Amino acid sequence: MVLVLRADLRLTPGKAAVQAAHAAVNLVTGTGGGKAGELLKAWMAEGARKIAVTAPTLDAMRELERAARARGLPTTMIQDAGYTEVAPGTVTCLGIGPGRNGDVDAVTGELALL
Amino acid sequence: MVLVLRADLRLTPGKAAVQAAHAAVNLVTGTGGGKAGELLKAWMAEGARKIAVTAPTLDAMRELERAARARGLPTTMIQDAGYTEVAPGTVTCLGIGPGRNGDVDAVTGELALL
Repeated sequence: MVLVLRADLRLTPGKAAVQAAHAAVNLVTGTGGGKAGELLKAWMAEGARKIAVTAPTLDAMRELERAARARGLPTTMIQDAGYTEVAPGTVTCLGIGPGRNGDVDAVTGELALL
Repeated sequence: MVLVLRADLRLTPGKAAVQAAHAAVNLVTGTGGGKAGELLKAWMAEGARKIAVTAPTLDAMRELERAARARGLPTTMIQDAGYTEVAPGTVTCLGIGPGRNGDVDAVTGELALL
């Protein structure tokens, strides 16, 4: 599972952590049965590995979302309620996965670590 | 839901985000039925609010865990596999909740934001 934070928002570490947690929970609770459900079970059994990276802009994040969906990977976009650091509705984080390592790496392997 | 990170480990923002995500997923997937399940459903319906805070030391974190459990709140302690920033098995994060606001605030209301 990859949690992609927008670098251009310059979120505090706490805000970034919460957005990443939102995305991870959405991906886990939003995945049903079938192949995606099997990948989820396998991922949890293997330690539920997660990585946090950054995308430079919202456009870059939307492009990553498209690329992930094209490979059949689960995705979730997090919009912040905007009580504190950002305007309401700001897209802060994209969650991708879990999925086959090759698919996830092909989409996110070049992104900088948060 | 409150995600408590250890300040003394000086985790990078990315590492902190991943530990918080681990804790949030554990709390959501580990909560069964009964009263805890009802609180979980209500929390998700209300936007699944999360906050990231810090505890100064491992001892402080364990004390928070005890206080949360004494109030019947769900808790999870995250130990890192230690591939990167910290030694294997290092306790990095405590997740608490969801629960009634009064219970959660009584345990974590004085902690500094991450």
